[in-house]
Amino acid sequence: MDWSAQLSNEAKTMQASDVSDLLRILEDPSIVSFAGGIPDQALFPIEALQDAQDALRGDPERLRRTLQYSSCEGYAPLRQWIAERQVAEGVEARADNVIITSGAQQSLALLAQALLDSGDRIAVGRPTFMGALQVFSLRQPRYCEVELDDEGLKPAALEEAFRAGARLLYVIPDFQNPSGISLSLERRQAVLRLARQYQALILEDVAYRALYYDTPPPPSLMALDGAASPLEDGCVVQVGTVSKTLMPALRVGWTIAPTPLIDKLVLLKQAQDLHTSTGNQVIAHTLSTSILDTHSETLRRVYRERRDAMVSALLRHLPNEVEISRPGGGLFVWLTLPEGSDSAALLRRSLAEEKIAFVPGAAFHADGGGANTLRLSFSTNSLEVIEDGIQRLAALLRGAS
Amino acid sequence: MDWSAQLSNEAKTMQASDVSDLLRILEDPSIVSFAGGIPDQALFPIEALQDAQDALRGDPERLRRTLQYSSCEGYAPLRQWIAERQVAEGVEARADNVIITSGAQQSLALLAQALLDSGDRIAVGRPTFMGALQVFSLRQPRYCEVELDDEGLKPAALEEAFRAGARLLYVIPDFQNPSGISLSLERRQAVLRLARQYQALILEDVAYRALYYDTPPPPSLMALDGAASPLEDGCVVQVGTVSKTLMPALRVGWTIAPTPLIDKLVLLKQAQDLHTSTGNQVIAHTLSTSILDTHSETLRRVYRERRDAMVSALLRHLPNEVEISRPGGGLFVWLTLPEGSDSAALLRRSLAEEKIAFVPGAAFHADGGGANTLRLSFSTNSLEVIEDGIQRLAALLRGAS
Repeated sequence: MDWSAQLSNEAKTMQASDVSDLLRILEDPSIVSFAGGIPDQALFPIEALQDAQDALRGDPERLRRTLQYSSCEGYAPLRQWIAERQVAEGVEARADNVIITSGAQQSLALLAQALLDSGDRIAVGRPTFMGALQVFSLRQPRYCEVELDDEGLKPAALEEAFRAGARLLYVIPDFQNPSGISLSLERRQAVLRLARQYQALILEDVAYRALYYDTPPPPSLMALDGAASPLEDGCVVQVGTVSKTLMPALRVGWTIAPTPLIDKLVLLKQAQDLHTSTGNQVIAHTLSTSILDTHSETLRRVYRERRDAMVSALLRHLPNEVEISRPGGGLFVWLTLPEGSDSAALLRRSLAEEKIAFVPGAAFHADGGGANTLRLSFSTNSLEVIEDGIQRLAALLRGAS
Repeated sequence: MDWSAQLSNEAKTMQASDVSDLLRILEDPSIVSFAGGIPDQALFPIEALQDAQDALRGDPERLRRTLQYSSCEGYAPLRQWIAERQVAEGVEARADNVIITSGAQQSLALLAQALLDSGDRIAVGRPTFMGALQVFSLRQPRYCEVELDDEGLKPAALEEAFRAGARLLYVIPDFQNPSGISLSLERRQAVLRLARQYQALILEDVAYRALYYDTPPPPSLMALDGAASPLEDGCVVQVGTVSKTLMPALRVGWTIAPTPLIDKLVLLKQAQDLHTSTGNQVIAHTLSTSILDTHSETLRRVYRERRDAMVSALLRHLPNEVEISRPGGGLFVWLTLPEGSDSAALLRRSLAEEKIAFVPGAAFHADGGGANTLRLSFSTNSLEVIEDGIQRLAALLRGAS
């Protein structure tokens, strides 16, 4: 049929599905993977999960309600808890400012649908999260890439993006995916100043905020903005998730925004999937109000050791001409190889010769550049595997350079 | 800020959120609701759900895997089971022809994104499912409404739609929402003939297929089409869900389609929400392969009694000039009041004077027409409440007419 051939061609011209490919690689148990941007499932709080399920089972009427169709905005106590966390940070948020989504990815998808039209300019980090690029690209925007240094987005580059007409900025201020770099407090203030000056909206993604290993990150952009103006008049929309702190497959995330935008997101979400699994929302709420804070301490302790092991191994084994980021949190270290290097070719050799996986940097670049960069995740491997894997990867790199 | 005022205006011009409004009404326990298109939560198989959860708990490694990020296409055993059900009906389907979605609503959203562009013509029933209209409308298509009679879509009207340029048809062949009407076997053959003739694609929604109360429905459009040509060359894409047979808040649905279309849907879904909650997919699979068939018999037995009670009460109490559909399954009876009646006004009186809710028919009409129609659901109320509620609604109708 006509439409079938047409689809084949369209599928070929669409961007290759990097995340899917990665997830397939991760399913091969013989591969040492530094590729996945995933939490360690050995750390999932399954006892607390079972306690939360048991509590629901103890109240069959409530259990039945959680299995019925429900409101698109999300489970009211979870919305309330998310608003209260903002209030504790000085933001005048109410439950009405919160929509629960099927993971932060859906938050980004709905925001893109609401705010981004074909041809619009959007400012993103160079590099930035590939899942964001994937969903933004479906809207066919024009990207304004903003270079990072050790303190995050460079203000001059951001101002250039706003001058060029970008009215949206997507940013992960804390331990960014893929680089691990955080925006310093001064840079956060500068980003807010520029956003206000150019009447731009900031989409702040705080997925990694709780995963700090040295000192807690500076206040969020939403909190800093909230100190200056009420949320309803603010220039920051915040996207959050339980995927990195609790369990990804709950598929529970959220967006905090002025109510007119929440109203629009609710209409869009309703057309997309009616609502997010209520049982999963109830579990996310129960765990968030019980074990989240102590569990986050456990995560920080375990991931801190792995971060230390990976950074230490990289410093000891890598050739001097390779630059590495020094992440204060999150899941990732970012490598910049000498100009002219090809990390995609390196990955092919690394998989073939050493069975070691990582993510070539091009996937995180809106213009497909960054061929000499790559992302390593330290979240899922033991200290021994990290030491051994990095040593072998470094040997390969020394041979390649 | 500029964008805030702009959003306010856009939100006002968007269609009112009928489903959300309904869900709010349903939360008021003093209302007798014939409004919701929802299953009876008292019938949810919660013992089987708990058994499925217990089985997962007995295998902590597997439990941890179900809580991790997973592949966008969906849980492989569930995809396989769905394909096998098609094979049993004579369709050459493989797991590759299946994508798991976050409910049938997401199936429709992804299909609309893949197949429908602004200005395209799409054929839909008059009336049809409002959730489909809601998501299609975001693509700004031109609707070709196809009138129904007791055997479903009228072939002459459908051919007119195809002649006008529609290359997509959305249809619920079995016990349609909202009318309860099914496509007869002859009509199914006619619809397929026309689709092939005009090279159109049929989006077949089988949400209510298992809920038959007299005789099983004729073969699905996909099965009838599969008897003529392999699925890969077919003209039918099928959308299914566990929402009406198991539990809606699992948010598990699927699309069965030729692989080039599945590939495109996977890319789109990945950008939307990465994947559907794996734990919910595992539960859907466990319940589908254990209790689904016997549980469906229970549902048919209970809902049959309620259908009989509602149709009987309507026949006894309604004024003669009101037409009612005679559903052989599903959840709904459709009323056509005399020309010039206003079911929205009737709803306001019905809520105020009798605390009885139903859905005015306009929500199910692409052109906003059908003011003299309304939908009644018999799924969630006892026989006594149905008898009493219909008696009171009929009294109101006699007063109004």
